[in-house]
Amino acid sequence: MTMAIERTTIKVKKGARPNSPILIVGLPGIGNVGKLVAEHLRKELKAERIATLYSPHFPHQALMLKNGSVRLVSNRFYLAKSPKKGGSDIIILTGDTQAVSPEGQYEVNSRIVEFFAKRLKGSFIYTVGGYNLGEPIVKEPRVFGNATSGKVIKGFKSTNVIFGKSRGVIWGSAGLIIAFAKMKGLDGLCIMGEVGPFDIDASAAKAVITTLSKKLGLEIHTQNLDKMIEQTAKLVRELEKQAGMPAPLESGTEAGSKEHRPSYIR
Amino acid sequence: MTMAIERTTIKVKKGARPNSPILIVGLPGIGNVGKLVAEHLRKELKAERIATLYSPHFPHQALMLKNGSVRLVSNRFYLAKSPKKGGSDIIILTGDTQAVSPEGQYEVNSRIVEFFAKRLKGSFIYTVGGYNLGEPIVKEPRVFGNATSGKVIKGFKSTNVIFGKSRGVIWGSAGLIIAFAKMKGLDGLCIMGEVGPFDIDASAAKAVITTLSKKLGLEIHTQNLDKMIEQTAKLVRELEKQAGMPAPLESGTEAGSKEHRPSYIR
Amino acid sequence: MTMAIERTTIKVKKGARPNSPILIVGLPGIGNVGKLVAEHLRKELKAERIATLYSPHFPHQALMLKNGSVRLVSNRFYLAKSPKKGGSDIIILTGDTQAVSPEGQYEVNSRIVEFFAKRLKGSFIYTVGGYNLGEPIVKEPRVFGNATSGKVIKGFKSTNVIFGKSRGVIWGSAGLIIAFAKMKGLDGLCIMGEVGPFDIDASAAKAVITTLSKKLGLEIHTQNLDKMIEQTAKLVRELEKQAGMPAPLESGTEAGSKEHRPSYIR
Amino acid sequence: MTMAIERTTIKVKKGARPNSPILIVGLPGIGNVGKLVAEHLRKELKAERIATLYSPHFPHQALMLKNGSVRLVSNRFYLAKSPKKGGSDIIILTGDTQAVSPEGQYEVNSRIVEFFAKRLKGSFIYTVGGYNLGEPIVKEPRVFGNATSGKVIKGFKSTNVIFGKSRGVIWGSAGLIIAFAKMKGLDGLCIMGEVGPFDIDASAAKAVITTLSKKLGLEIHTQNLDKMIEQTAKLVRELEKQAGMPAPLESGTEAGSKEHRPSYIR
Repeated sequence: MTMAIERTTIKVKKGARPNSPILIVGLPGIGNVGKLVAEHLRKELKAERIATLYSPHFPHQALMLKNGSVRLVSNRFYLAKSPKKGGSDIIILTGDTQAVSPEGQYEVNSRIVEFFAKRLKGSFIYTVGGYNLGEPIVKEPRVFGNATSGKVIKGFKSTNVIFGKSRGVIWGSAGLIIAFAKMKGLDGLCIMGEVGPFDIDASAAKAVITTLSKKLGLEIHTQNLDKMIEQTAKLVRELEKQAGMPAPLESGTEAGSKEHRPSYIR
Repeated sequence: MTMAIERTTIKVKKGARPNSPILIVGLPGIGNVGKLVAEHLRKELKAERIATLYSPHFPHQALMLKNGSVRLVSNRFYLAKSPKKGGSDIIILTGDTQAVSPEGQYEVNSRIVEFFAKRLKGSFIYTVGGYNLGEPIVKEPRVFGNATSGKVIKGFKSTNVIFGKSRGVIWGSAGLIIAFAKMKGLDGLCIMGEVGPFDIDASAAKAVITTLSKKLGLEIHTQNLDKMIEQTAKLVRELEKQAGMPAPLESGTEAGSKEHRPSYIR
Repeated sequence: MTMAIERTTIKVKKGARPNSPILIVGLPGIGNVGKLVAEHLRKELKAERIATLYSPHFPHQALMLKNGSVRLVSNRFYLAKSPKKGGSDIIILTGDTQAVSPEGQYEVNSRIVEFFAKRLKGSFIYTVGGYNLGEPIVKEPRVFGNATSGKVIKGFKSTNVIFGKSRGVIWGSAGLIIAFAKMKGLDGLCIMGEVGPFDIDASAAKAVITTLSKKLGLEIHTQNLDKMIEQTAKLVRELEKQAGMPAPLESGTEAGSKEHRPSYIR
Repeated sequence: MTMAIERTTIKVKKGARPNSPILIVGLPGIGNVGKLVAEHLRKELKAERIATLYSPHFPHQALMLKNGSVRLVSNRFYLAKSPKKGGSDIIILTGDTQAVSPEGQYEVNSRIVEFFAKRLKGSFIYTVGGYNLGEPIVKEPRVFGNATSGKVIKGFKSTNVIFGKSRGVIWGSAGLIIAFAKMKGLDGLCIMGEVGPFDIDASAAKAVITTLSKKLGLEIHTQNLDKMIEQTAKLVRELEKQAGMPAPLESGTEAGSKEHRPSYIR
């Protein structure tokens, strides 16, 4: 075991055999959109953990748990079986953190794509992130997309996903996983909710979930996101009363996500 | 030899054969609690060095010694034989520093757990740290714990260790060693003294030592800690006389410990 | 594929067989001179991509493309066949970024030199950069050179390249590739346009292109560079109207190029 | 060749066979004392280069040379044959830089010790550094020492080297090489000139050279150091005329030496 912890390792539960799965990746990043979406889907779809990824490129942290125990930071794969017989299962990848160095990012994300393609026999990957256009207030967050190919873009014609209008770079897992998928001949989409200046942007997360649910034919409740959205809206109204507050609003975010928060999305 | 220095290496003294030992890990970190506790126990228990760990992930430093000599920074294992025949020996791990990168932390701490489990045949690990709740003054430091399992938590029922009230992340050896122990099937506890804003918090160290001594049935004198506590108290009284001093107090701390001082504990 | 992404890799198109080529390297750096020159030559010479270099030492970024797709950051080799039969072909190396760590720089740049010498059978390398003498305004940018040997310097006698007047260090690809070329017995020249305080200095790029075209007997149009130069000149005139503006001018530069912008050139 | 550049490599000139040599290491660091001493001895003793060390852990820099050429940053071994037949030769190690990461420092310095012990069959190593006690003006710089053993300290009884009064850590080559020498069973001394607040402290360098020359029975002229000392003294007198100048004086130093200037010495 111990030596394994010194390398990026995926521990798989026995008997996990998803049926032609799609993968949805949501990790800490801009607006925490990816993580919010993934955790929400995981709960709503009652997905069960099938694999855990550990890496020495993650921050050197253990998490204190509510039950008084402790666990290493990780990324985790959850399986939601399709309600239709023979339908595509959904794998959700989420976790506490991303790798902290470029080399670590390349290693961890290439392992994720390889594991999904070779072991889980999957062929389509969504990565979820936030996209920040610098607007101080985003009333109706738009949904942007960057895909592995024109063929994939065509498949999203009848959706609200906007292609070709996002510019710049996608840092971290949201970008690398789609780029690696493309290089490996998989299809994939980086789907991004438009975020405002908040560290946790439930509104952008809801926009992405709405788009994804329609596309995938899922019924997903969003009440708890609505609560978060209302809390944020209240906060904004209070701030608007106080004139001249210059500093950007920051509410709590995931451990480790700040230190490599980039300019655009992750 | 030389090549060995380029990798994490544990040099073991011949003939070291501890009897079903427990391990107490105390390294530089928040409030320097871990290091204070480990050094205090080492002296009180007259423990003798049995092994030394070197790593290229430690800071590139040599220490100037009082006798005019020099030595490489290291972590060191000390053995205190149990006074009872057949009783569990105590191994104390302390040192000058911790690894400076995440990859180094994963490597060094996984080696420590592996060495303790496989070579020393031990099965229970304490890591000692400080826990900062942000209080400017801590009169009666509490003792918090995070354990490898519910079974271990139950074993501390009759102690003053508080479980399930600490939140966030444990950085460095104090966290990783317990997380790795759990993954390897060992039992362990991260025991944390509540610290104030001081870089060296003898009061928190004394609280942990008191808890540990009772649990382990050790008789430990704490006079030198009491002296340190009194010195700090004097300093606090002086500062309270001077109104409006805003900067946090900082007294000397271990070499290398500052650069990766995290938000919670280590 | 996936494992390959975890190491520096050059993917070569089949059938690429340049004839005794010379290499011109222009990557993001001071004044963006290298990248401007390389991209300009690539378009003017209608060079075609023959190989792509990926590296985990590059920033962990994917680029959002105008067509809604995405691709991994890379360096790319382009081939321009010589118009003369049997003449030396030109290989242009440009890309989105440079490696972010010293170790990565050594690895990527040694691979580039090795690939050019062994696989492409080339023997002369130009690296292009900017050289900043701290002048606030550079009306007529000079062209400085540092070469692999006195023999190479002699070969540039009848040009405007100034040798022996540049001092200090050359960071990154522009420096390492020439140093490695020298160690491997190849000939080469680091050719540097004198830059002002602008992040994108088309004027310095034009000076280098003019020198290179003459030396290589190429006919290169520079209208689009002239437009950029005029835009910058306009900006300078506006700034000169406003008195006392202290901050250095900064216009948009390549992704990733800022974080390791050094004091002299790259 | 190229692959070799991706690892720490020592290139040795053929036929270099020093006679039971001692090694004097002087690299960029505090007060630039090590480098000043080594370069001075190299010139005075007319030492000739016998080996060059390259490392990907050095900064990714090439140096622009006065003759218009370029070379990779390196450390270099120079040999000064003993004037006495059968006497110990002197090897001087100096260079442009030190490794930039802890891992790189461990690797490079362990290679240096190994090369000296195994290939050059040497047995005594001096490392030279500066020691800063925080004094604003140092009229008569003292010479401090930290040695591999008490036996070595005894050997310096009749010199002005002060043992056991220096405290703290020695960063970089000056410390690691002596610590590694000790671990390998070699004898060695880190000899430190007391520095003031100057980046280049010729006065401290002269103090070390004087001590070393006496001990090694060398005749070394120090006129050029005297000139540097006089220049600095003049600067100090000018500064003393101007009241209230608070900032520390900084004159030019070696490329790359600033970024890891530590608190004590190197």
